[in-house]
This record gives sequence, C-alpha cells and structure tokens, in this order.
Amino acid sequence: MTGEEIKSTSVQYNMQSWSKQKGINPISVEKAEGIYFWDYEGTRYSDMSSQLVNLNVGFGNKDIADAIKKQVDQYCFVGPSYGAESRATLAKMLIDLMPDNMGKVFFTNAGADANENAIKMARMYTGRNKVFSRYRSYHGSSFGAGNLTGEPRRYALEPGIPGFVKFFDPYIYREPIKFESEEAAGDYYVAKLREQIIYEGSDSVAAIVMETITGSNGIIIPPKNYMPGVRKICDDFGIMMICDEVMTGFGRTGKMFGFENFDVKPDIVSFAKGVTCGYVPLGGCVISKKIAEYFDDNFLSCGLTYSGHPLGCAAGVACVNFYEKANILENVNKVGAVLKSRLEEFRDKYACVGDVRAIGLFSAIELVKDKTTKEALVPYGKDPEGIMGKILGLLKQRQFMTYTHENMVFICPPLIITEEQLLEELVKVDEVLAIIDKEFL
Amino acid sequence: MTGEEIKSTSVQYNMQSWSKQKGINPISVEKAEGIYFWDYEGTRYSDMSSQLVNLNVGFGNKDIADAIKKQVDQYCFVGPSYGAESRATLAKMLIDLMPDNMGKVFFTNAGADANENAIKMARMYTGRNKVFSRYRSYHGSSFGAGNLTGEPRRYALEPGIPGFVKFFDPYIYREPIKFESEEAAGDYYVAKLREQIIYEGSDSVAAIVMETITGSNGIIIPPKNYMPGVRKICDDFGIMMICDEVMTGFGRTGKMFGFENFDVKPDIVSFAKGVTCGYVPLGGCVISKKIAEYFDDNFLSCGLTYSGHPLGCAAGVACVNFYEKANILENVNKVGAVLKSRLEEFRDKYACVGDVRAIGLFSAIELVKDKTTKEALVPYGKDPEGIMGKILGLLKQRQFMTYTHENMVFICPPLIITEEQLLEELVKVDEVLAIIDKEFL
Ligand SMILES: Cc1ncc(COP(=O)(O)O)c(C=O)c1O
Ligand SMILES: Cc1ncc(COP(=O)(O)O)c(C=O)c1O
Repeated sequence: MTGEEIKSTSVQYNMQSWSKQKGINPISVEKAEGIYFWDYEGTRYSDMSSQLVNLNVGFGNKDIADAIKKQVDQYCFVGPSYGAESRATLAKMLIDLMPDNMGKVFFTNAGADANENAIKMARMYTGRNKVFSRYRSYHGSSFGAGNLTGEPRRYALEPGIPGFVKFFDPYIYREPIKFESEEAAGDYYVAKLREQIIYEGSDSVAAIVMETITGSNGIIIPPKNYMPGVRKICDDFGIMMICDEVMTGFGRTGKMFGFENFDVKPDIVSFAKGVTCGYVPLGGCVISKKIAEYFDDNFLSCGLTYSGHPLGCAAGVACVNFYEKANILENVNKVGAVLKSRLEEFRDKYACVGDVRAIGLFSAIELVKDKTTKEALVPYGKDPEGIMGKILGLLKQRQFMTYTHENMVFICPPLIITEEQLLEELVKVDEVLAIIDKEFL
Repeated sequence: MTGEEIKSTSVQYNMQSWSKQKGINPISVEKAEGIYFWDYEGTRYSDMSSQLVNLNVGFGNKDIADAIKKQVDQYCFVGPSYGAESRATLAKMLIDLMPDNMGKVFFTNAGADANENAIKMARMYTGRNKVFSRYRSYHGSSFGAGNLTGEPRRYALEPGIPGFVKFFDPYIYREPIKFESEEAAGDYYVAKLREQIIYEGSDSVAAIVMETITGSNGIIIPPKNYMPGVRKICDDFGIMMICDEVMTGFGRTGKMFGFENFDVKPDIVSFAKGVTCGYVPLGGCVISKKIAEYFDDNFLSCGLTYSGHPLGCAAGVACVNFYEKANILENVNKVGAVLKSRLEEFRDKYACVGDVRAIGLFSAIELVKDKTTKEALVPYGKDPEGIMGKILGLLKQRQFMTYTHENMVFICPPLIITEEQLLEELVKVDEVLAIIDKEFL
C-alpha cells in the first residue's frame, strides 16, 4: 500500500483511541530507526514522547529484533501453564532487579491488566475491599484500571465500582496552600492521606495505588518524604502499597524503577511499556514474597490466555539485557540533566511557561496564561479553541512529535537519545514557546 | 536452561493463573509443530485443546512466522495514532469477513479487553447503563470482563459493578423443564430473557453480551431459533447485541464466526485468540456502521497503548489469509463430523458420559455419576476428591493434553488436525472413559 492508501484505509476501518473519529488524519509510517521515523514521502520525524512513553530503546533495536526472531523459530506460544524458557528467565531477571522483599511475577499483556491484577491480588491477600488512588492519575482504561484512574477518562466507566476511593496528589505547583519547604509539603500530603484512610475505615482498605511519579497527568514528582510517609501509613494499617511503574519503570526516571528515587519498597509493582518497549505487548505485576506465599495455599483467581506470552517474554529478556549492556541509566542521567536545565531556562525566559518538571528523561512543560495567577493556558477538561492542538501542530511542523494533556506538553524521548540530538530538538521547542508567548497569551 | 531448570525457575518466580501455587509442576516445552509439542526429555504430547482454544493453526505455522519476521524488519511498534500497513490491512480484512452492517474495528490486546471495550462502546452509544450476560459464561478476568463472566471466577471481583445483570443460558441438558422440541426450548429461553429485560427496565439496558456458543462453561449450543429471538429483543428495545467470538471466531465452529450458524447480525463482535492464534497477542471488537458513525462526532473514550499493535496485526493478516488458503472451514466440517459421531458413540457406550456436545472442532464431554438422574461426576464449583484432576492425569499419561471445567472434558484440537490424527487421539479418550466407568462411578 502507499502511504495515502494506508491512511484512508485506517480512517475508514480503524477506530482511533481517545478521539472523535471525524477529522482524523494519521501519518503513515514507512520506516523507523532510533529516535526517528519516516512517512511515505520521506519526511523524517523525531519521536519526542517515545511513542506513548513506551519506546525506551527507540526503534529498530537489533537485540530485541533478533530475540523475537529466535523465539519465533522455537515457538511463538505455549499456554501459561507450561514451562517456557523466556518466561522463566524474564521472571527471574525481574525479581533480581527488585528489592529483596519481592517474590514472584504475574505476567499480563499490558499496563491496564497489570493494574487490574495488582488490585485483585491485594484484595484477595488482605481480604479487604477498598482501593485508594489519586485524582491526577492514569492507570488504564478497562473497568478496574479505569476506576483507579482519576482524570476525566474514567467518566466513561461511571457509575464507578464500589470501594474505589480517590485522594489528591502532591501537586505543589497548583496547591492553594503555600508550603514552607518541600518537607512540609510532604508531611501535609501524608497527613491528609492518613486522615482520609481513617475516615474511610482503615480496616477496609486493601491498597493504595500510585504512579510512583505521575506520568500522563503532568510528571508530578512527589517531595522526598512523601513515598516513605505513604509506606508508613501502609505499614501502620496493613495496606498494600502498589506502585504503578508502567511509565516510570525501566530507566525512565534515571533509576531502574521510579520508587528507587525515594528509597521505599512497595508490596506490588505493576509494569508494562519499558519491559519490552512495546516491541511485543507485555505487562505484569511483581508481588512481595509475603503475598506470593499466601497464594501457595490459596487459589489465585487471576488469569489470562496470554499470561507470560513466550514471544513477549523473549523480547523482555533482550530488552532488559540491553538496558544494562547500553548503560542506559548513565545516559538517562547525563542527558536528563541537560533536559532539565534547558527546561528551566525556558521557564525563566517565557511568560507562557508556568512550571517545568523533569526527572531523568521524563518531563513536562506546564503552559499558563499568566505566570502570577498560574491560570492554565486551557481550562481543566476543556480546550474550546483547540489551543493545545495548535501547539502540537506547531511542533509537528518542525517534525517534533509528542503529545499533550490538559495544559501540558510532554518531552519524554527514547532513553538512547544523545545530548546532541536532544539539543537539536529543544531548539524547536524554544521556537514554539516564543510563538505561544506572542500569539496565545 | 534444561527442562528441569525451566520448571524450577518457573515454580519459583512465576505466578500461575487459576491455581494454588503449591504443587504446580509444569511441563517445560522445548519444541512444537502442528498439533504436537515435545518436552525436554523428547516426549511428544498432543494438543487437544489448541492450548486455551486459541491455537487454531497449531504450532509452527510458517506463514505467520514469516509475517512476524518481516514486520520486525520494518518496525515492531508505532503508536495507535499512526498509520501502519498491517493494522489498516487487518481492519479491512475483518470488516470484509463480517456481515454488511459492520463498520469499523477497535483493536485490543486480547479477549478480556475486547469485551471491556465492547461494553464501554455500547454504553456510550446507547447512553444506557445496564449490561446483561449469562451465568454459564467466561468473558475474561479484568473487572469489566470479569463482571460479565457468570461462573465462579467472577467471585474475586465482588462486590460487582452496578448494572451488570445475569440471565440463564439455553442449557437444555440440565434444564428442570422438559421441552417438546428444540424450537419450544428456544422460545422459552427467549421469552424468559424478554421478561427479565422488561423487569430490569428495558430502557436502561445497553447490551446483551453472549458467547455465541458458550465455550469454557461447556460448549452450550443454543437452539436454532434462540439467537434470532435475542436479536429481535435487541431490535425491539434498542439494545446492542454483543457476540463474544473470542473462542468461537475464526473457524472453530465450522463457520468463520459462530453467529453465522444462526443467521443473525450482531451489533458488536469481540474477538481475540483465533485472529492471530496467539502467535502475537491481539484482540478487538468489530462495531456496526451505526455505532461507528456515532463516534464520528462523539468522543471515543477508549484507548490502550498497544491498540492495533503492528506486530500483532501482521500476524493477524497472515493468520486470516492462512485460513482461506488452507481451506480451513472445509477441514473443520469434515473432521468435526467424525468427532461428533465418535463422541455420540461414547455417550451410548459409557455410563459416565451424560451428554456430548460438538459443533465443528468445538466439543465437550459431560461426565455424570448417573445417566438417569444426570448427577454430575463432581458437584458444582467443587471437586473435593480431585476426580477431574485424576481424569486429566489419565489423559496426560497417554500424552493427550486438554483441560476440564466442572464435570466436563474439552476436546478442541487445532483446526488443521487430520481425521487420522483425531481418530488416533480418540482411542485414548475411549480408554479413559472405560476407566472412569470402572473406577469413578
Ligand atoms: C502509569 C500508567 N499505568 C497504566 C497505563 C495503561 O497501560 P496500557 O495502555 O498498556 O493498558 C498507562 C498507559 O499510558 C500508564 O501511563
Ligand atoms: C469467550 C471468551 N471470552 C473472553 C476470554 C478472555 O480472553 P483473554 O484470556 O485473552 O483475556 C476468553 C478466554 O478464554 C473466552 O473464552
């Protein structure tokens, strides 16, 4: 097919996620390599969001490609109840990467079902029903994961599932209170959470589910003492701490897992994206030894046809090995420091940049109408004039591909990006921010 | 790794679906071809359940393998919002296979999320909330799909989601009423469903979700007039008819889709398994033109990172093409007729065989203690003496691999099985049924 045929066939036959279908105008991708991909006219685009923050190793990774082909030659699939080398190998590798309290892996297909199974296991293990999660969060779009999700994408699932309770995020930039210090902020959020847990009935709470660092809802990095504070609440009340590492896992934040930034040990970790970078769909959750032991003698009422898919696991083994071989964390920290300081320069330079937040290669620019009032460039949940779409368009004109959420633009490039490549791309952001200052405020 | 190492690593690090973890003893699979697979000692096993009724083309299909490798060389992944040739091609192929009322495809990773999205779309489109599904059903284990599921595997998800209503299946064999004819039975079930819809408030019902032919819960084949009767209820009340074709789709029943056996057109069809045979995870739902048009101007609040995964779609294109090239329906109908008549002979020959049900290569043997009272060999939801496990063990001793549910043994071999291969395998079933008659009644 030509690029045009692919586009028109897609538009005619494919339902596009999170959209009205009218007016969809996809770029057809012919080839892809590293941080770049090309359309059928030969235009090169830079992938500055790692697709959906999953393509950590970029396109065309040879090690993963070879591993997939080798697994295809053995077999693509055997059922979850059989022993498959790639599955056993990856499970062990993941546990070896985890803190010493972690015991076993339950594999799923992606991020939503990783979270679904995490909360199912927490409920079974604790015998409790309620599950806490945060407003500014995205955990997937199936009923369970979507009820964890706090942002508007959950509305389609309402009336919600009984027992899903929301609390607020440590979003200091927009907090109506002014804190004396980061530590004071952390203490405040932890105290409010404790209060809410008590008022919901601490004995009925199975789990607290958090993106370790909030992703799609704006790269919200908690104060240093926040996660340890939540850990203590969990310990005090026998609640499972579930870290959703679907985006933050596998190097994105400069550590192998996001929670390593805060020196805490979760009870359950959900993962997906970076485990295979999406070369083959794979997700799962890692559970503590204690929880794993509970299921020695208790029925695990979880299951899916493709749990521990051999091809997915083969891609996972190669991908995790690649992170180490390529010294990926070193690159993330080095290039991430450059990203952070450039973003901070933009904040100082442009009226439209209210806040920038960055950790590793995980960053967002928060756009405002007015720096003093912090009024967002578009109101929450709405963008009647399509301003954010226009901003994406300006970036796309420069072949800078990413996505936005509310009033935020994400910059989350593949973890293999070089400093030179990044600086070249940030010139485009610089240009577009200047246009926003001039035309959109 | 050796087979033993794979086994012990799996047991140590992998959580196994639907099980207590203690005592798990997986067979490590070294290679696989056609309907057979081999452990690391060289023992050959026959796959008489197509793994989890997904491996329609058997192991080692060259066409699919080559297509995967080719796609790997182009790219494994681009995000759902881009045009990818394999995704566009497969969407069009699926619509071309469907009745003329069907319009677009929304791709997912597997079966559970296919159903999750099917009910989300039905609710958005109708603006209604309630969803009907059946007691003897399995639709997946995530919160939405698991609340559709009627059998005990849903208990782990209770308290359930508001608005999920269950009705009974057309399970004539165990119905306390004796019907004059199949037609009378069909009329009865349809009338009861209509009554229940009215009592739930027909204006509040978004969808009726059914496995077209119930799979895991016992290959329950509805009377000829049942599906048309349900279709009429849906038409009368503006309810979406959702056929879960995750197991029945792609040739399993001797037609490309199960609903073709009953001459009805669903509004939404969920699919997974046979679309790629699990070579790469893929699922989705096909929606009618009417529903698709609604989303032209209304926001589709559905999405997942791997929607329309290019590698999955490449496997799907090759797989669907293979069905045609191999004339798969012809083989299913030919070998299926042999299967059915042999099973009927078993029913006449053995006291323990209460009922057999078969359509295409989709069949189950229902075991009873007593043919007259129809008392099941094990009580519902329990098997205190592990009898069904022992029966599986007897089959496994003969390298006949399948699975059971309640008092039922499934025989659902790959659709490429030859008559000769099938007859060779059924000799083992014959032997085991004789043992059951002698030792378990
Ligand atoms: C933090 C987080 N959790 C879960 C998910 C859901 O993953 P998936 O789209 O694979 O279902 C996402 C997807 O963006 C995510 O960012
Ligand atoms: C009819 C039916 N629907 C849905 C599912 C769920 O599919 P998955 O295991 O891929 O989530 C299954 C799985 O066996 C099924 O048989």
